[in-house]
Amino acid sequence: MANSLAAQHISVIGLGAMGTALAKALLAGGHQVVVWNRTTSRAEALAAQGARVAESAAEAMSAADLVILCVLDDAAVREQIEPAAALLRGRTVVNLTTTTPEQARSLGRWAAANEVELIDGGIMASPEMIGGPASLVIYSGAAVAFDRHRSVLELFGRAEFVGTDLGAAAMYDVSILGAMYAMFAAFRQGATMVRSTGGTAAHLAALTVPFLQAIATSLTDQAVGIDTPADYAQIQSDEFTAAAIDLIDKAAVESGTPTDLYGALRRTLTGG
Amino acid sequence: MANSLAAQHISVIGLGAMGTALAKALLAGGHQVVVWNRTTSRAEALAAQGARVAESAAEAMSAADLVILCVLDDAAVREQIEPAAALLRGRTVVNLTTTTPEQARSLGRWAAANEVELIDGGIMASPEMIGGPASLVIYSGAAVAFDRHRSVLELFGRAEFVGTDLGAAAMYDVSILGAMYAMFAAFRQGATMVRSTGGTAAHLAALTVPFLQAIATSLTDQAVGIDTPADYAQIQSDEFTAAAIDLIDKAAVESGTPTDLYGALRRTLTGG
Repeated sequence: MANSLAAQHISVIGLGAMGTALAKALLAGGHQVVVWNRTTSRAEALAAQGARVAESAAEAMSAADLVILCVLDDAAVREQIEPAAALLRGRTVVNLTTTTPEQARSLGRWAAANEVELIDGGIMASPEMIGGPASLVIYSGAAVAFDRHRSVLELFGRAEFVGTDLGAAAMYDVSILGAMYAMFAAFRQGATMVRSTGGTAAHLAALTVPFLQAIATSLTDQAVGIDTPADYAQIQSDEFTAAAIDLIDKAAVESGTPTDLYGALRRTLTGG
Repeated sequence: MANSLAAQHISVIGLGAMGTALAKALLAGGHQVVVWNRTTSRAEALAAQGARVAESAAEAMSAADLVILCVLDDAAVREQIEPAAALLRGRTVVNLTTTTPEQARSLGRWAAANEVELIDGGIMASPEMIGGPASLVIYSGAAVAFDRHRSVLELFGRAEFVGTDLGAAAMYDVSILGAMYAMFAAFRQGATMVRSTGGTAAHLAALTVPFLQAIATSLTDQAVGIDTPADYAQIQSDEFTAAAIDLIDKAAVESGTPTDLYGALRRTLTGG
């Protein structure tokens, strides 16, 4: 235990692949970790690594400086914490369960009414990445509590605070995931198209990956145009963008795999 | 002239920003460059750098080992080369004008009927990138002619041959551009969403760019799943993907900026 002087009591509720990875990172950081999962068998490997396995969620929460929730969805969060309101009074809860922004805000209203400090988090990493250099977790909500627990939260990866609106972390989270799925969807569509010419998805990937990695940096400039349009000289007119996307769409039709994807891109980028 | 022994006569038809950049790269490579543009004034700077300015497109083509076309669109290509069929017999034409795959194939049928060797190319670079390390041009069509002229074409940037189907280069081109616009569109939508929480597009870009650069490498694995599905264990079920995208869509609605973008991503990735 590298940091035994600073060791905290931390409970982790929910031991799916992600909750388990979070608990392991806390154990590796030298903390006293109490875990609970609906199915106790999930806790066995963690017990062997030094975690205490609670008999109930309430027991896991009752001694914790910090309560971390990583369960299926918003309904499962409510199911665990609402009966424990009295136990949680004055404590900090970090909800790393994937929810919508409005669900996070609604939980925040419950937390405020019950004098619970709530931080919402969105994990931009797979379980095996937790604690590694590429792991990012986005947080919003109780700023003072975030600062107080930052060193613990940094055990999971880079900890980025994006605002006191409890919905902010989820909104950043889904926005980034949306860009990821957009890349995946357009690659899948494009691969189908190049395969119609005798090409391969592998060849397309070899050309696409370095191109996207390079062009991604232009998002920083595009952000200026979104945050402060008056400061920004648009490089490409909407008309040019619309014509370019229409040509892509025409190629999709020619490939025999028409799609509504490119029309949606055109409307999002040019409004028409 | 670094390569005067290997210097070729090359004509460049069309001197927009891109055609001008191509002509400059050829001049820098030591070739004898003849240029033509509808508006002669565009040719003046190139003349000062050693290009010969032809009186007509036919004159530019008549002495060339290699004819490079970079004009507005397929119709403009036809307008230049159809009257010059007799002059072009036995020569190689590289069409770097943006067209659809079917337009490239149709031009290929004209070329075959007129004994012209045709290479179609898609430029994945802005004019200022031409000749630099990040420039990529994708070619398809006449493979032997491509090999013969490869050293010239590499003056523009990395030269990638993707198949003998004349439509292949355009299909790769639009597929890669489609992935770029998908990234741009999802970023723009996401920026609107995070701004509704008090966040900024700049903060979103700072988090999104490294994430997308890292996750882009997964396209190589996804390509295996597309080219040879039997060899590929899908990491994430379609049901999980659909649910994740639906949550993003719900967040878009909560942000007050509903969009058809995420529905299109879901349909492309999961078929439903």
